[in-house]
Amino acid sequence: VGTQVSKLPPKAATNGSAEDRTAEICFTAARVIYEKGYDAASMNDIAAAANLTKAGLYYYTTGKQDLLYRIIDIAMSMVEQNVIQACIDIADPEARLEQIIRNHIATVTDGAGAVTILTDEVNCLPSEQRTEIIERKRQYLEFVRQTLRELNDKGRLRDLDPDIAALNLFSTILGFPRWYHQDGQLSPSEITEQIMRFTLGALLKE
Amino acid sequence: VGTQVSKLPPKAATNGSAEDRTAEICFTAARVIYEKGYDAASMNDIAAAANLTKAGLYYYTTGKQDLLYRIIDIAMSMVEQNVIQACIDIADPEARLEQIIRNHIATVTDGAGAVTILTDEVNCLPSEQRTEIIERKRQYLEFVRQTLRELNDKGRLRDLDPDIAALNLFSTILGFPRWYHQDGQLSPSEITEQIMRFTLGALLKE
Repeated sequence: VGTQVSKLPPKAATNGSAEDRTAEICFTAARVIYEKGYDAASMNDIAAAANLTKAGLYYYTTGKQDLLYRIIDIAMSMVEQNVIQACIDIADPEARLEQIIRNHIATVTDGAGAVTILTDEVNCLPSEQRTEIIERKRQYLEFVRQTLRELNDKGRLRDLDPDIAALNLFSTILGFPRWYHQDGQLSPSEITEQIMRFTLGALLKE
Repeated sequence: VGTQVSKLPPKAATNGSAEDRTAEICFTAARVIYEKGYDAASMNDIAAAANLTKAGLYYYTTGKQDLLYRIIDIAMSMVEQNVIQACIDIADPEARLEQIIRNHIATVTDGAGAVTILTDEVNCLPSEQRTEIIERKRQYLEFVRQTLRELNDKGRLRDLDPDIAALNLFSTILGFPRWYHQDGQLSPSEITEQIMRFTLGALLKE
C-alpha cells in the first residue's frame, strides 16, 4: 500500500453507486485473473487495470479471494436470472431448451466472458462459499437435465442418456467463452447460430 | 524441508526407473492440483500424496511450476501419440474423426483424468513454456479442423462452419474429464458411446 494510501477514497463511495462500481471492478478483475491465472494475478495488477490505487481497491474488497467469490457469484446470478428464471415457465421442452442455450450464449457474448469462465475456479474458494457455488451449479445442471428428460419422454431426444447428454451440452456451452475471443471472424449472432446448430443437432431428432 | 532432509533418497533413483517414478509423481500431483487448485496445492500436499518426504519430492522436480509443466507435457504427449499420430494416416475423414474422438476419450478413461484437465492451467507457466504448449494445442486443433474441412468438402458435414464446429467439438471432449468422475453410473465404454453419439450427431449428416 505504502505511498498510495493518502489518495482520496474513490468517488463511487460517496454517490451511492458503490455497488455498480464494485461490479465493474469484478468484471475488470475477472479479465485480469483469467489472463494471468488466479495465482499469478496480484492485487496490484487488478488495481492498475481498474484505475485504482491498491488502497482504493481494498475499499471495495477484502482481497483476491473475496473478489473471486464476487465474480463467480455474479456469473451464477446472471445464469440464474437470464437462463433459469427466464426459461422456467416455457412449457414446451424443445422451445425451453432452445431458449436456455440462446440465453446462456448471450450472457457470454454480451460481455461477461471472463466472468463466466472463472466459475471453474470454485476450488480456490473457502469451503463454505465453495459448497454454496457447487450447489447453485448443480441446480442449473438439474434444470437442464429435467428439460432433456422431458424431451426424451416426448420422443424428441436422439438415442441418448438424458443425464449424460446434459453434461455434454454443459461442456459445450461452458467451454465456449474459452475460445470466443480467439476467433474474431464471426459476429456474435453467427457464433450463436453455430452453437445452436451444433448442440440442437447433437440432441434432437431431425 | 527441515527434519525430513536426512531421509534416504528415493529408491527409484538408484534402479534406473527414475523416469517412471517421475511420471507417477506427476499423475499424483495432477490429482492434488486439480482437487485443491494450483494456488492452494502445496509441495507438502503433493509429497504426502506421493508417499514422499518434501525433500524426496524435490529430488524429482525443482518445484510446483516444474511439476505443472511436466503434467501438461505428459497430457499433450498422450494426445500427440494416441490421437494425432494414431489417426493421421486414416484417409477417410469420417473414419478419422470417429477414431480421433474415440482415442481422445480413451486417454481420459484410461486413467489420465486430472492430467488432461490441467492443460487449462497453461497460464500458470513461464512465458517460454506457455508459448510451447499453446503451439502444441494449436496443432491439435488444426488437425481436427482439417478433418472437418475435408468432411465439409465431401458434403458429409452438417450445415456448419468447420472451424467453429472444431471449437465446439473441442469444448465437448476437453470438458469431459471435468465431469467424468462425478458420474459413476455408466461404464467407460457406455460413456464413450454417449460422447460419440453426441458429437457425431452434432457434426455429421444422417
